[in-house]
Amino acid sequence: MRDADAASVSRVLIEGDMMGIPTHGVLRLSTYIQRLTNGAVDPLAVPLLEHRAAALAMVDGRNALGPVVAEAAVRAGLKMTAKTGIAYVGCHASNHLGAMIPYALKAVDAGYVMVAGTGASATMPPFGGAAARIGNNPLCIAAPCPDAPHFMLDMAMSVAARGKIRMARDAGQAIPEGWAVDADGQPTTDPAKALEGLLVAVGGHKGSGLSMGIDILANVMTGAASLDKVGSWSDAIDQPQHVGHFFLFIDAGRLIGTDAFLAAMRQFRNTIHATPAADPDHPVIMAGEREQMLRAQALTDGVPVKADVLRDVRRLADV
Amino acid sequence: MRDADAASVSRVLIEGDMMGIPTHGVLRLSTYIQRLTNGAVDPLAVPLLEHRAAALAMVDGRNALGPVVAEAAVRAGLKMTAKTGIAYVGCHASNHLGAMIPYALKAVDAGYVMVAGTGASATMPPFGGAAARIGNNPLCIAAPCPDAPHFMLDMAMSVAARGKIRMARDAGQAIPEGWAVDADGQPTTDPAKALEGLLVAVGGHKGSGLSMGIDILANVMTGAASLDKVGSWSDAIDQPQHVGHFFLFIDAGRLIGTDAFLAAMRQFRNTIHATPAADPDHPVIMAGEREQMLRAQALTDGVPVKADVLRDVRRLADV
Repeated sequence: MRDADAASVSRVLIEGDMMGIPTHGVLRLSTYIQRLTNGAVDPLAVPLLEHRAAALAMVDGRNALGPVVAEAAVRAGLKMTAKTGIAYVGCHASNHLGAMIPYALKAVDAGYVMVAGTGASATMPPFGGAAARIGNNPLCIAAPCPDAPHFMLDMAMSVAARGKIRMARDAGQAIPEGWAVDADGQPTTDPAKALEGLLVAVGGHKGSGLSMGIDILANVMTGAASLDKVGSWSDAIDQPQHVGHFFLFIDAGRLIGTDAFLAAMRQFRNTIHATPAADPDHPVIMAGEREQMLRAQALTDGVPVKADVLRDVRRLADV
Repeated sequence: MRDADAASVSRVLIEGDMMGIPTHGVLRLSTYIQRLTNGAVDPLAVPLLEHRAAALAMVDGRNALGPVVAEAAVRAGLKMTAKTGIAYVGCHASNHLGAMIPYALKAVDAGYVMVAGTGASATMPPFGGAAARIGNNPLCIAAPCPDAPHFMLDMAMSVAARGKIRMARDAGQAIPEGWAVDADGQPTTDPAKALEGLLVAVGGHKGSGLSMGIDILANVMTGAASLDKVGSWSDAIDQPQHVGHFFLFIDAGRLIGTDAFLAAMRQFRNTIHATPAADPDHPVIMAGEREQMLRAQALTDGVPVKADVLRDVRRLADV
């Protein structure tokens, strides 16, 4: 890979570890490198930026690694927003892009609001369905405060991770209603049946509809593969994912003035922080604050990485 | 009110009834009229449209009824999108706008994708909080298919309506985990304690974060009142709400060509419809399909309205 592209991928994965999202950290490096070496992903692809209007652009990822495609889109989107006050950049022919929140960091650093999302391979049934057709598509909404911490929501759509269901099974406990359906699409509280079945989206039809909406914004509108046509980055390890992403930026300063906007965001943060807490030991915080706190800690104390993951990274670096 | 403004309000409320959302139908007329006559809302206000950039505009609602403000924003946004391919229109100094899905209808009729949302008075605690600070802010994502039904998600953030909790109490049943917290912010399955407490957002921190994100996009960015400063349309019946909305439109045809986009949306709908159903009597559908089916039925058979609501409407019409 080109150094600049390798740096993009490294930044996005290391930010994941720094912000307490190790599932989207350097843990992924081994699969990323496997996909680069087996021909699933093109290490030398140069994503192609195409402007479609002053505030609309597309990035043809040309099957590069996702962070290479997404960073090209974010760079273009921020530049366009400086001129037009708003920009939508859609990506297609891309792959897994890591966590969304490292991209949000760039938006809030530039002083812009960001709404972004990505497709993902189908792992959940649409509401009322008995087969996987929708992805656990993350949605990200970020907005700058005058100083850190900023507001940065990065949420996927499933109620719970499979790991939590495995823990319940091993502990002999039932899982709460609404976490999963069995192989026939019937709601279940039996963790064994849930593991044979499928995770479901938060809020039943709500999370299911939201996942569909993000599929449209990230995949359908960009000409990427949609719904169950999106490739799995891990199950179909030798195949391109054909996945899409979208990044929307808005300069709220153009709407109400930068000072007024930042003052309103400070007031927003203050109001959230001043909310009486259900547990006095856990003050109420904005989405993304925990991640930013962990990131600040990592910048001074170093990045925590599990021993086996670190061993893998070192082994890969020696190749 | 001016005839055109009265027509906007009527359209939005009647669409609510036609689409099976009677909570946002002509049921609201009595409160709307009460707020018009007691001075809370200005019946003669003319919302002021201000362009901030080719694809950015603001509507100062000047304390008109919400549908009057929102329809002005949608009209402007659709016109801008025809030129620029994208538009964000933010509204402030507005009031309750009815359901979101009647506005989505206008966007899909124009062939555009819409992402929209509105603030609402604070009725839920942010995740981990013990007091109401966030609104049950709806989010709407809509996209046209080549023909009806189109994709139209219109979701609020609470897990369940208060009415469902009352029904559980009256039936002597517990409510599921995750629906509500008691007056101290502690999770409860006791419907009586839940009714003294607060509804919570879907998916815990996820729905809570999403509500905050919509508050930023609709309220903070537009200079409207935010979080617990948004007025209640019913509890503070003689006060303006100072609420904000946002409408974002994108012409996906400018990204990948109109024919390719509509063909991809048809494929999207086909895939959802072909999903094996958990219950064969309930085929899997896209968000908003049920609403469009009911609307088509209402257009031929008439609009179902409860007898007491109809009596109220007739009484109001006689005044």
